[in-house]
Amino acid sequence: MEKNDRYFMHIAIEEAKKAGAIGEVPIGAVIVLDGEVIAKAHNLREAEQTAIAHAELLAIDIACKETGSWRLDNAVLYVTLEPCAMCSGAIILSRVKKVVYGASDPKGGCAGTFMNLLQDDRFNHQSEVVSGVLKEETGELLTNFFRELRTKKKAEKKKKKAEIEITKINSL
Amino acid sequence: MEKNDRYFMHIAIEEAKKAGAIGEVPIGAVIVLDGEVIAKAHNLREAEQTAIAHAELLAIDIACKETGSWRLDNAVLYVTLEPCAMCSGAIILSRVKKVVYGASDPKGGCAGTFMNLLQDDRFNHQSEVVSGVLKEETGELLTNFFRELRTKKKAEKKKKKAEIEITKINSL
Repeated sequence: MEKNDRYFMHIAIEEAKKAGAIGEVPIGAVIVLDGEVIAKAHNLREAEQTAIAHAELLAIDIACKETGSWRLDNAVLYVTLEPCAMCSGAIILSRVKKVVYGASDPKGGCAGTFMNLLQDDRFNHQSEVVSGVLKEETGELLTNFFRELRTKKKAEKKKKKAEIEITKINSL
Repeated sequence: MEKNDRYFMHIAIEEAKKAGAIGEVPIGAVIVLDGEVIAKAHNLREAEQTAIAHAELLAIDIACKETGSWRLDNAVLYVTLEPCAMCSGAIILSRVKKVVYGASDPKGGCAGTFMNLLQDDRFNHQSEVVSGVLKEETGELLTNFFRELRTKKKAEKKKKKAEIEITKINSL
């Protein structure tokens, strides 16, 4: 299999699924240097209860530690969802060469949709950006996750209502 | 001593000095909840060789772990230098109530100087911002650090030049 953008995005999707499997919003990221994966991470905000545990930020931290340098000049970052302001800031600081993302985030994506921090030439670094790689698969992961969440919440609400009814009947 | 903004900024300055003492750019941050310091951190980018080791980001991570929650709704963050894009993003994500900073950063400050991510009402959270607390002290820390760095670099260059001269003379 050719190691192209779709190949590495598939690995990011596998990471995203790991997040989904433990009830986290399914977002995954991979960092590639000279054609090799040097870091993989997925969203761990709920599990770790820390606001900074986004897939991209964790992957950048792993990649820096792996290479022994805070500079990731020749690295490419693959992420299933467009990076937020925090992660875009981390991408700028670590000088990641290229960012490839799947689904766009109109509410907070800072790689061209909501804002374009990654290509603001007033910063001392700009990244190449490729958007929409495996757009459907990466987007569906999120859509399905939130649909299931809503269904679960509805079912819980219904169950609670029924329990209240039973309590009322029993106390008659 | 009254525990006001200047009081907590003094603690952030002590953190910044710890960074300076190990050759890091002297920036320090403190997070306060209900009048008590729950997290202190300083810039560790060079020591840890990771792009994400900014004072504010580290302090947010510590505070989340300390409180057991990624939400820092009632927390106040004190930092000696205006937060960058990454740290401002982390502040938004963790819902920090108020940010108090010392020196402004015209080149990358995202709390009102270069950009104002912290008060962009298109995000789902905005923080109160107080700027310029102990502005002189926090600014001087940075000015002195970079002045010393330039002096050191100049001296090293001079020494190298002299060594080349000696080699030349010896080879005559």
